[in-house]
Amino acid sequence: MTSNSLFTETLPRIQAVDGSWRQRAEARQLELTKPPGSLGRLEEIANRCAAIFESLSFAVTRPRIVVFAADHGVCAEGVNLFPQAVTAQMVLNFLSHGAAINCLARAGGIELKMVDVGMASSLPAIDALIQRRVAPGTRNFCVEPAMTEAETLAAIGVGIEMANQAAADGCTLLGFGEMGIGNTTTASALTAALTGLDAATVTGRGAGADEVIMARKIGAVERALAVHAERLSSPLNMLVCIGGLEIGAMCGFCLGAAANRLPVLTDGFIATSGAALAVKMHPAVRDYLFAAHSSIEPGHKHLLALIGQRPLLDLQMRLGEGTGAALAMKLVEAAVSAFTRMATFTSAGVSGAEIAAGSQ
Amino acid sequence: MTSNSLFTETLPRIQAVDGSWRQRAEARQLELTKPPGSLGRLEEIANRCAAIFESLSFAVTRPRIVVFAADHGVCAEGVNLFPQAVTAQMVLNFLSHGAAINCLARAGGIELKMVDVGMASSLPAIDALIQRRVAPGTRNFCVEPAMTEAETLAAIGVGIEMANQAAADGCTLLGFGEMGIGNTTTASALTAALTGLDAATVTGRGAGADEVIMARKIGAVERALAVHAERLSSPLNMLVCIGGLEIGAMCGFCLGAAANRLPVLTDGFIATSGAALAVKMHPAVRDYLFAAHSSIEPGHKHLLALIGQRPLLDLQMRLGEGTGAALAMKLVEAAVSAFTRMATFTSAGVSGAEIAAGSQ
Repeated sequence: MTSNSLFTETLPRIQAVDGSWRQRAEARQLELTKPPGSLGRLEEIANRCAAIFESLSFAVTRPRIVVFAADHGVCAEGVNLFPQAVTAQMVLNFLSHGAAINCLARAGGIELKMVDVGMASSLPAIDALIQRRVAPGTRNFCVEPAMTEAETLAAIGVGIEMANQAAADGCTLLGFGEMGIGNTTTASALTAALTGLDAATVTGRGAGADEVIMARKIGAVERALAVHAERLSSPLNMLVCIGGLEIGAMCGFCLGAAANRLPVLTDGFIATSGAALAVKMHPAVRDYLFAAHSSIEPGHKHLLALIGQRPLLDLQMRLGEGTGAALAMKLVEAAVSAFTRMATFTSAGVSGAEIAAGSQ
Repeated sequence: MTSNSLFTETLPRIQAVDGSWRQRAEARQLELTKPPGSLGRLEEIANRCAAIFESLSFAVTRPRIVVFAADHGVCAEGVNLFPQAVTAQMVLNFLSHGAAINCLARAGGIELKMVDVGMASSLPAIDALIQRRVAPGTRNFCVEPAMTEAETLAAIGVGIEMANQAAADGCTLLGFGEMGIGNTTTASALTAALTGLDAATVTGRGAGADEVIMARKIGAVERALAVHAERLSSPLNMLVCIGGLEIGAMCGFCLGAAANRLPVLTDGFIATSGAALAVKMHPAVRDYLFAAHSSIEPGHKHLLALIGQRPLLDLQMRLGEGTGAALAMKLVEAAVSAFTRMATFTSAGVSGAEIAAGSQ
């Protein structure tokens, strides 16, 4: 199947969840041995999952995080603190289990998949690396479109493929993250295009930019928006003009998760830019998205508003790699466990079912 | 050893952590393959643990949550939504693995211990229940002291004993929670006494109080403060006059955790009232405390200020049982895993060590 047809056949598979399942889940929550509403957002998570799975009895199996890596032509503008070679170096670090996401995934019992969507450096064939190299990085979007439309659809297709594979593997909870030196600048450009906000509002320090690099980042976003102004009317064109290969893949991953009716956790700012593009392509993607955490990147909250999600965690993180998703996955698992495995007032012989039922 | 001597021999064992270990941990963080500071509060957690363990190489082993149950004489004032019998019914539910804390502990691989510090109903001997029944609940503190000093010291001793046992069992991360119908009123009275704030400011809806019950709760707290006004000058006397058996035990558990140099996670409002009393008894207890989450009980934030901790989670929960501690435990485990198992820039061959070192 070509990337193009993968994209076009996936969109119509996405359907909004059936709200009546959420109501059934809410009614079930009142039967469980706790004061009504006392598990707060854990109840909201479980109720949303019930609507996604159309069931009151489901489980988190094979939770999986997919990390998409690629490089960015905009690095030519000097927007990056770390040298571009770090993208591939960090991917090798992932494959050696040495990065933060490896530690968090291992601590959390989470499967990790690493995908090269288009790094500047080509790595040799490595078993654990899923090589789907669309291009050797994007072009510099300050001067030309970042990708061709074919490359963009191919990148989206990589994400859809990974979601389809996860569904086929029996994963029932997905998360995603990214690695790509320079990609906060790309995400800032996309955020500006998606929200209409100006470059300075949605551009942050990324890996730790100083004033000089910050000025370059904002300047690069402003130039990108000016150069491509007439073509930024659709989410697909935004990706073509000012996107990133891994961001396209993450967009596709969200589309694919929704098409397969699987809950999916976004990570930080860059990951959420992919999710926001997917929501723009199909608003029902929102029903499957959970926002893992609130990044300290200033553009993140605007993207979270676009995808209509309140983050589960606020730990002042700004690393990416899927680290926020890995932490939030444990909350989703806990929420599902409580919802599906708690005793009811009746089964446990605990007084108060009538109080619980009456209080909401 | 008598309870009294357990208390008096534990206090001098508590020592403030050595801040130089925190600095060594901060320096180590800069060597790990991530932008400096990018793991946010996970770095703070790990650095604090390094100071507690006086090591840069430690692990979370046998994470354990201890739940303390007891009843409250103030229930005679009609402050409780659920009947008092629910305390023992819920303890039986815990022992049958049917409560929320069971689900969260199971999902998180956390050991759970259940302690009866003084429920009104006496349960038959049950293997999984640690029976340390000091009294059949407290007395109604609106008319008389909740406990004798001997009962109070016995309750504190139960908590110390559980912390000592956890240390002997090789647990390196502790949490605690509670079950006790009516105990939000007790925690509100203690919070008012500890902070000087008025009853209405620190009293909330607990399990779901309506306006009538809310008025009774506030009234009960006001009367308790008036009746015992002259005796509320020390944390021990606060426990005697307006405390709870499980709150005394949680206070003791915090003292014991600190004495054994173990990090310990508080849970919600009631658990934190025990932690705050422990901090009042020995300020260095603060160094060992981590606040799991922010409860929606209005008094909680004032107690968090007293113990000097910012909560890790804000999930709008208000259940108790140690549920917040169970969720936050996974964050501490993740933080420790990242700190102790990540590659360094040098070991992974990733460029940027000099950037990392220079950015802070």
